[in-house]
Amino acid sequence: MRILVLGGDGYCGWATALYLSRKGHEIAIADNFLRRQWDHELGVQSLTPIQPLSRRLAAWQEVSGQFIETYTGDVADYDFLRAAIEEFQPEAVVHFAEQRSAPYSMIDRKHAVFTQVNNVVGTLNVLFAIREVVPDCHLVKLGTMGEYGTPNIDIEEGYLRVEHNGRTDVLPFPKQPGSFYHLSKVHDSHNIMFACKIWNIRATDLNQGVVYGTVTEETAMDEALINRFDYDDVFGTVLNRFCAEAAAGHPLTVYGKGGQTRGFLDIRDTVRCIEIACLNPANRGEFRVFNQFTEQFSVAELAQMVQSAAREVGLNAEIDHLDPPRVEAQEHYYNAKHSKLIDLGLQPHYLSESLLDSLMNIAIRYHDRIEVSQFLPQVKWREARNQRSRRGSAQAAVALSERQ
Amino acid sequence: MRILVLGGDGYCGWATALYLSRKGHEIAIADNFLRRQWDHELGVQSLTPIQPLSRRLAAWQEVSGQFIETYTGDVADYDFLRAAIEEFQPEAVVHFAEQRSAPYSMIDRKHAVFTQVNNVVGTLNVLFAIREVVPDCHLVKLGTMGEYGTPNIDIEEGYLRVEHNGRTDVLPFPKQPGSFYHLSKVHDSHNIMFACKIWNIRATDLNQGVVYGTVTEETAMDEALINRFDYDDVFGTVLNRFCAEAAAGHPLTVYGKGGQTRGFLDIRDTVRCIEIACLNPANRGEFRVFNQFTEQFSVAELAQMVQSAAREVGLNAEIDHLDPPRVEAQEHYYNAKHSKLIDLGLQPHYLSESLLDSLMNIAIRYHDRIEVSQFLPQVKWREARNQRSRRGSAQAAVALSERQ
Repeated sequence: MRILVLGGDGYCGWATALYLSRKGHEIAIADNFLRRQWDHELGVQSLTPIQPLSRRLAAWQEVSGQFIETYTGDVADYDFLRAAIEEFQPEAVVHFAEQRSAPYSMIDRKHAVFTQVNNVVGTLNVLFAIREVVPDCHLVKLGTMGEYGTPNIDIEEGYLRVEHNGRTDVLPFPKQPGSFYHLSKVHDSHNIMFACKIWNIRATDLNQGVVYGTVTEETAMDEALINRFDYDDVFGTVLNRFCAEAAAGHPLTVYGKGGQTRGFLDIRDTVRCIEIACLNPANRGEFRVFNQFTEQFSVAELAQMVQSAAREVGLNAEIDHLDPPRVEAQEHYYNAKHSKLIDLGLQPHYLSESLLDSLMNIAIRYHDRIEVSQFLPQVKWREARNQRSRRGSAQAAVALSERQ
Repeated sequence: MRILVLGGDGYCGWATALYLSRKGHEIAIADNFLRRQWDHELGVQSLTPIQPLSRRLAAWQEVSGQFIETYTGDVADYDFLRAAIEEFQPEAVVHFAEQRSAPYSMIDRKHAVFTQVNNVVGTLNVLFAIREVVPDCHLVKLGTMGEYGTPNIDIEEGYLRVEHNGRTDVLPFPKQPGSFYHLSKVHDSHNIMFACKIWNIRATDLNQGVVYGTVTEETAMDEALINRFDYDDVFGTVLNRFCAEAAAGHPLTVYGKGGQTRGFLDIRDTVRCIEIACLNPANRGEFRVFNQFTEQFSVAELAQMVQSAAREVGLNAEIDHLDPPRVEAQEHYYNAKHSKLIDLGLQPHYLSESLLDSLMNIAIRYHDRIEVSQFLPQVKWREARNQRSRRGSAQAAVALSERQ
């Protein structure tokens, strides 16, 4: 199958591109390397020493014999995107090419506006390009479980059957996202649903949980293929950060009580879910939604699991409860359905099995690269600053200065 | 009360600014005159001969003795918006300053992207400016009944109590908007709801129905104050267009069967609803939603009412059923609640009373300005074009050429 991976140099995108390539699919990556640029802006770097895309791809060709095509550019640039799609003629487009950090979107007005414009315009461009160039192509779009928020009812997969005043309908599940980033994904979902309806496009929205882990079979084949491991307060996801903290002898930074419950999955399941979606495309005109995660945990539970795993390798990890930087319920009901991908064949990896291998051991292996200044949350939801109140106007310079 | 009217030179904004000014409120208008620019782009003009804002405001001062402040600029330009709000220190901001035509947003990719970026960024800017400069100020935001689409259940005012698997919650009403424009308003609603929650802002979202009519008490006070009357296929709302068609001896252009049912209101009720919202502000942190319309009609019913009204003044109006340009249900359940504004004191004007005075007679009075070429729908939902397939790249030039 010809699959175009937008954002294929990023954390999920890179693992996905290699996995699909090894499975025999014909892969192209489109990326503008903005994710790497944000590391420079924030003054942080991946715990693992990731290589430039060109080196990664050369190494991949060497170990696997597979060639992956590269298109360097921005999906928010329609001419670029259209030309890439015209040349590659994908049967599926996997769209990871969005700004995906909630704290990044909450830094200030400019970062909020950037996140929403970048993500919404990029996805609109993908929809127009598919409609115009490859109308039968299947859009596999990464959404987030964070679109739903934490309602006091069970979370269904995209749609909810509602009975109201004696009548019934199946409606889009109501969304209560918790950051300007999560909002951008809600905007995308509405736009894609509409495009499917009016243009008869086929799309699958994968509302993904929090991804953890670094190692996939493919990235483990050569050191040059290693995936990124973000542990900073802006791009690091919670499990990665906890493991880096444990490896550095730093307390685990739980936000508030830690009762926040979310869906989680191993990156090895991310890549498999993408393949499942590609191999079982939505019908023409269908906007299909899968909840893509395998287990639910509260943040406090995760901290305890990491603490135990650390103990097994001789590390003593304390747990710190910080003043919560986000605005979110710290205790709440959470029961999110996630059976559709299982029904299509997903066999989950569970955290209890991968915590040591794919997380703790990586953190220990690269612990001399850890900068403890990256652990503490700098971005606060209630205090989102305006760029006018900051010294200097260049975005990168401003963000860097926060780290001083 | 100090009220800043964003988009105060437009159809609803102008009528609102004068009404509130006459009621003794201190009014400022912010506008960038993009609405007038779009007329040039599309090669159309208001049926009524509207005056430039500076002339309008001079005439208003002459007849009423009231001064209205002007800020010329774009709410998508944060520095402009912030400076205006800093200087005027509004107690309420009424936000009409959005691209408000569904067909305009469906012309092609550029118009879709423009509509969403313009509306979403403008509203984000308003939220950040309120939070930063006037945190107690009440945002009165114009949404649209079109955000809801046509669900098979009763439409509530913003929120829906859901019972599901034995648990209940009150959730944002699920949205199924029918154009990239309507989608932009849904994006806004989600963004505003979030800002209210994290920053303790107060906001009222007025999900307005289709507005009809031209005459308000204030705009009738001087010919120079006359409001715009759009009857073209892009910006003209359906009742205005039907009346212009009747006055021109042209068949009434019903899209498809005409079973599309929507909420409608007289522009004299629009201005009163805005005042009611301002005088009864939402609480700090509250995101309040009112459905702002007074009567429901199907398009076919409206055509019949206009036909009858035309007959009363000696005009014979036929009804034409056109191939529907939009993608929408032509027969559907529709029952939308709209009691909250009534509870706060709205006394509706009904269409049966105003059809002749505020619509048909205006259309007849200016019938020599009618261009029949403006009646027929040019923008088709399923065929949204891409700008690459069109000759010329300047947006205005391209759009003008469609009319040739």
